[in-house]
Amino acid sequence: MPVSLPEVKFDSSGLVPAIVQDAETKEVLMMAYMNRESLQLTLEKGETYFWSRSRDELWHKGATSGNVQHVVEVRVDCDADTLLISIHPAGPACHTGNRTCFYREMM
Amino acid sequence: MPVSLPEVKFDSSGLVPAIVQDAETKEVLMMAYMNRESLQLTLEKGETYFWSRSRDELWHKGATSGNVQHVVEVRVDCDADTLLISIHPAGPACHTGNRTCFYREMM
Repeated sequence: MPVSLPEVKFDSSGLVPAIVQDAETKEVLMMAYMNRESLQLTLEKGETYFWSRSRDELWHKGATSGNVQHVVEVRVDCDADTLLISIHPAGPACHTGNRTCFYREMM
Repeated sequence: MPVSLPEVKFDSSGLVPAIVQDAETKEVLMMAYMNRESLQLTLEKGETYFWSRSRDELWHKGATSGNVQHVVEVRVDCDADTLLISIHPAGPACHTGNRTCFYREMM
């Protein structure tokens, strides 16, 4: 039985973290936040929508750059407070032009 | 040049989200939060330590269950406010006994 939208636990700011993973390579590309509206749009449209905490606005990933993310699967964790979105990327996930936002090592 | 601990941006609660990924299969296993101390311990000991927001305490993953996570790599994203930890798991990541916490589908 798939998990439905009302079961997702948004935090006190109305947000849930969403991990974005390449459906083919399994590379983790980015993490961003979704509110209820952006999650609903993501499920309906099959492309990723987020809530930008810095710009305080709905953000359709790729609307400007063309690097939209086509959604293959949306999963939710055991606590229903984190999402994992598998996608096919139309281009780099990172605003730096890197394929993934996680291009730097600590260890 | 690797990113150093002082460059990591902890949020107003002193936490940073850490995505945990299986180094072999690339499966995303869980997401949890680290404070400065738990990140430092993770880097030093080569096993994952987190900050439990529900128990409000330092949490050595696997200390009770035996399912420790051996750290292979720690990466940081472009904003330095999210971590990606590649690990070799000694057992299931999820307290439910599932290999991954993301065992439920929304779409």
